[in-house]
Amino acid sequence: MKSTWRRYYSHENFESHKRMYVKFSDQRPPCLPSWHTKIVTVESKYPSIGWGGSTLSSDHALMATDLVCVEMIRRQSKYFIKTLMQSLCLVILVCMAPYARPFLLPSTSSSSPSSLVAPLKGAHRDLNPHSTASSSSRTPSTSHGSNLSSSSPTSTFDTFASFITAIQREIIQTIETEDGTDVKFLCDEWERDGGRSHGATCVLEGGAFIEKGAVSISIIQGKLSAERAASMSARGRDLGDCSQGDVPYAAAALSLVLHSANPHLPTFRSDVRYFECQGKGWFGGGADLTPYYLHDGDIVAFHALYRGLCDAFDEKKALFPKYKKWCDSYFFLPGRQEHRGTGGIFFDDLEALEGGGEEAGEEAGEEGVERARMFTEAVARSFMPSYLPLVRRRRDQLFDERQKQWMLLRRGRYLEFNLLYDRGVKFGLAGGRFESVMVSAPPMAAWKYNHTPEEGSEEARLLAILKTPRDWV
Amino acid sequence: MKSTWRRYYSHENFESHKRMYVKFSDQRPPCLPSWHTKIVTVESKYPSIGWGGSTLSSDHALMATDLVCVEMIRRQSKYFIKTLMQSLCLVILVCMAPYARPFLLPSTSSSSPSSLVAPLKGAHRDLNPHSTASSSSRTPSTSHGSNLSSSSPTSTFDTFASFITAIQREIIQTIETEDGTDVKFLCDEWERDGGRSHGATCVLEGGAFIEKGAVSISIIQGKLSAERAASMSARGRDLGDCSQGDVPYAAAALSLVLHSANPHLPTFRSDVRYFECQGKGWFGGGADLTPYYLHDGDIVAFHALYRGLCDAFDEKKALFPKYKKWCDSYFFLPGRQEHRGTGGIFFDDLEALEGGGEEAGEEAGEEGVERARMFTEAVARSFMPSYLPLVRRRRDQLFDERQKQWMLLRRGRYLEFNLLYDRGVKFGLAGGRFESVMVSAPPMAAWKYNHTPEEGSEEARLLAILKTPRDWV
Repeated sequence: MKSTWRRYYSHENFESHKRMYVKFSDQRPPCLPSWHTKIVTVESKYPSIGWGGSTLSSDHALMATDLVCVEMIRRQSKYFIKTLMQSLCLVILVCMAPYARPFLLPSTSSSSPSSLVAPLKGAHRDLNPHSTASSSSRTPSTSHGSNLSSSSPTSTFDTFASFITAIQREIIQTIETEDGTDVKFLCDEWERDGGRSHGATCVLEGGAFIEKGAVSISIIQGKLSAERAASMSARGRDLGDCSQGDVPYAAAALSLVLHSANPHLPTFRSDVRYFECQGKGWFGGGADLTPYYLHDGDIVAFHALYRGLCDAFDEKKALFPKYKKWCDSYFFLPGRQEHRGTGGIFFDDLEALEGGGEEAGEEAGEEGVERARMFTEAVARSFMPSYLPLVRRRRDQLFDERQKQWMLLRRGRYLEFNLLYDRGVKFGLAGGRFESVMVSAPPMAAWKYNHTPEEGSEEARLLAILKTPRDWV
Repeated sequence: MKSTWRRYYSHENFESHKRMYVKFSDQRPPCLPSWHTKIVTVESKYPSIGWGGSTLSSDHALMATDLVCVEMIRRQSKYFIKTLMQSLCLVILVCMAPYARPFLLPSTSSSSPSSLVAPLKGAHRDLNPHSTASSSSRTPSTSHGSNLSSSSPTSTFDTFASFITAIQREIIQTIETEDGTDVKFLCDEWERDGGRSHGATCVLEGGAFIEKGAVSISIIQGKLSAERAASMSARGRDLGDCSQGDVPYAAAALSLVLHSANPHLPTFRSDVRYFECQGKGWFGGGADLTPYYLHDGDIVAFHALYRGLCDAFDEKKALFPKYKKWCDSYFFLPGRQEHRGTGGIFFDDLEALEGGGEEAGEEAGEEGVERARMFTEAVARSFMPSYLPLVRRRRDQLFDERQKQWMLLRRGRYLEFNLLYDRGVKFGLAGGRFESVMVSAPPMAAWKYNHTPEEGSEEARLLAILKTPRDWV
């Protein structure tokens, strides 16, 4: 009869987050019913201190603490030292980020496991704005059925479409590797008009750290209705003839929504998109976090990464502040006077990016367009490097029923924004692929009338920051 | 050591809905932990056959069946006879409804407990369109601060506002009595512009059969912005000068949303409203069910009641078919090609109701307006009589985790309709009382990508009817 130490939630310690260690044998105690044996199968990840990090529902925990002998162990010094070292590394990383950005991403990737390396292929070249090398993913490919189009997409469109197709696969692979369980993405591939429009909605449900996530692409060539044209622009973009309706257009977009399972891990939303019409093209994209509990270091690191990326493309370092502000003002619920999350970056209507980082006007040269595409692709390559460190830090952090409930209420706000205000959703719904749009909905959400968190609580601290956005870096 | 029989969910019998009876003593068995004693406190409601009808979560049930001795008992003949008699009564009621309507409501109320009588005070007089008696609730009262208004509301407005204020109280009382627990409505009274606009948002959370419900009124006098005017009309109502914006108007509305706790009990939504502007007034209202599982008899009885009510006001019996169709076409999710529920009635823009039941045109006389108000008030008086019989039949029906999950998914659709398409929500949000509008949101909802129920299942049968609405009576 083998005896092991395992860590569980403790009902009595929900509030203070103290850790408890439950000792019981692998052989089922006489009054523990058979379905409890699944507790016993939790693997110990940290043999040095011997606890299993899996999240158990409060019911299981209650059972464990009620039914078996319980003992408490003080955090071991080893664990403290490890935590201290991690925090130090984080601080150094954050401080260095703005200066070291052009070199940072590849070097981060070299110290990361292979799953993280995948989406960074070619990132170095693309991140360095002076590079002219063309990676394989950027080689213009024949567009899917472009010969059928009355207004053929440009090579910029084809290149971008190939890029998002490739990086979608890479991101999916990275997440599945990180998940480490048998849960996989289910991909719904679709096409319309004999393949002129196609895409893939890939969904993961019930993952180890993602409760529900979607990584989707759509590559569309068609005629723009006036209704969809109206739902396109972020700030009244001058679409010119495009807004008249019945004009050929092409659009390609990659979008991610990862609804986390753990309230300590924020929900991650991001996208990159390109829209082309009447010989003109516009890039857009962004990435932002919707946290449920504020771990300031996580949010700072996330912003630092995107600041570094923006600064690498902009000598005057004006891109990041502009895009951060744009993100805050876009993800805003006017009815509640609340921002949806802690922000990130958001940009739209990007026609070209000149050498100094400034956006060019009407007479944007081809080089500027190329730089805009490179910037947008670099943003997409940063999605996983910006989120995975948080995943690793937070996926196994303990939480209780009250915290999960708060997460569900905040997810309600997420959905309110999506259905009431998000232009992407309006554009998507007008196009008719309802399930592909609603895939961004959280797996579960709650509403409670006039819920107000306790003064001085962690929940109230989050709300205060959502009411008045903070510049994190 | 007293020994009692109690009924519980059986884990093994979730699918077939067989009932199991668990026998255990009131004294805690040795291996049952202390928090299980709450199972023991469930009261037996039907001493004749000795089972407790309370719904237990699957976890508790699992515990009970796993931990204590389990025995199965066949349904007793007494229970069968009772069910048979109930079904017979229902069939007779449904068949008689169209003919006996003018007398049915009062006679129903006389056989109902006192909680049901309350909202029916004066219903008989109001239901009989030839009556000219004026009940106390119809005596014009001084409107709340009407002397401050630049365009004083008419006595029709004042009468209607008094009516909804009174019936809100009665409905709340009825529901609380029916609930029978300590859970009560919490009322948020509000006022604006020195009392010219006021209302009360009353919310019940965690009731015995209502998981979350709201019974709210708002009585508003103000200036209509062009934005709110645009969100008012159901079918491009000719608002005339009112739609120009900055025009004085008055509005009074009562709205109910009762999200049921049991998937066998439909969610009930209903409202009545009156809008007045530039000397003209329009009534509107409706009541409809959003079921999760179809119990045809329940839906038929619900429709029969409203058909009877409509027919009492309309010799040609054309009102009900028109309003049922309107309900189906209004509560429709175009993106999913699905109706939200099984319908009921919905009407808007009702200026006057002539003797024959036809709606009058421009030259509607005062009598027509009075009849329109009486009809609208009769609809409001029918809310509880149409829903409570269902509550009594379904509140204690057993359900399992799978059925609850289906309910959460359907509630997701409910919310989609509210946020994407409901004009009432748009009108409310433009007015700025966000929490009062979002109070209609379900307590909890779920989204799953491309969820399709099994062919031939009860869930598939519901979906088929939501795709092609049925005329129930």
